[in-house]
Amino acid sequence: MYYAFFTQMKKQLGQLGKWLEAAEAEAKAKSFDPNAFLGFRLAPDQFAFARQVQATCDTAKLAASRLTGKDAPKQDDTEQTLDDLRARVRSVIAYLDGFSAKDFEGAATRVVTQPRWEGKVMNGADYFLEHAVPNFFFHLTTAYAILRHNGVGVGKRDYLGGLTLRAP
Amino acid sequence: MYYAFFTQMKKQLGQLGKWLEAAEAEAKAKSFDPNAFLGFRLAPDQFAFARQVQATCDTAKLAASRLTGKDAPKQDDTEQTLDDLRARVRSVIAYLDGFSAKDFEGAATRVVTQPRWEGKVMNGADYFLEHAVPNFFFHLTTAYAILRHNGVGVGKRDYLGGLTLRAP
Repeated sequence: MYYAFFTQMKKQLGQLGKWLEAAEAEAKAKSFDPNAFLGFRLAPDQFAFARQVQATCDTAKLAASRLTGKDAPKQDDTEQTLDDLRARVRSVIAYLDGFSAKDFEGAATRVVTQPRWEGKVMNGADYFLEHAVPNFFFHLTTAYAILRHNGVGVGKRDYLGGLTLRAP
Repeated sequence: MYYAFFTQMKKQLGQLGKWLEAAEAEAKAKSFDPNAFLGFRLAPDQFAFARQVQATCDTAKLAASRLTGKDAPKQDDTEQTLDDLRARVRSVIAYLDGFSAKDFEGAATRVVTQPRWEGKVMNGADYFLEHAVPNFFFHLTTAYAILRHNGVGVGKRDYLGGLTLRAP
């Protein structure tokens, strides 16, 4: 199920790439600088749009790395344009493409930590459920909300992407 | 893993209940009607706060029902106050409390449908991953974003809740 979840995260990252295109189109239609979106936020003390996109990408990337023990490429959060953010999203999708279901065997019992936990650890199952998944969707949805609030014409279908519907 | 995910959803619903209390406190501190929050939204054509809370609750409730074949209580979306919304959240937590891991055996292969799919169906595994989980976090995070945008002092810890951290 871990691998299936990362496949879903890849799909959502693909949708995020499309929202970035919609933001660009909105800016062109209204004749403002598309890269202004990078600094938009919903509250003065909230991360701006660029940081929300970076955090979405990093949450997926670091979760895959921590649950498999494979190194993740370091990325420097230097994006200045919507194009840069699209490249960041693509790079994480490409990173996730490198995993197979087999890589996630034993993920549930891996020991995961990060500096802000001050020496404490979580097991992989708890980390994934309590931290990685909620954080991924938090930053993804906040990025979406910032675009919606600023007039970008995206809707729920653009959030979910296509569903695996079939005849009964 | 389905059961574990619903346990996590219950935890997040509990956090949502706390945000509603924080909204009430913010309104009292600024001397405005706390129930004004129910109509706040981030874009003119977006669901308002009350509907985001209802949708968060319904996504969890209906997913548990559809993946187990157990009936869900009908709820009429008549909430008028923050207290009403808190009661709605509590009712869904109580509904989810009624499930055990055993109820979700066979969830992955259940056939799930809803009216808007026009006769098409999804299997339980796809429905959970592609629809239920993304929608749950979408409405939860949008509710959070509406509160943040309107000055309610909640932060990432209030979103995630406590983590199962332990000594290494």
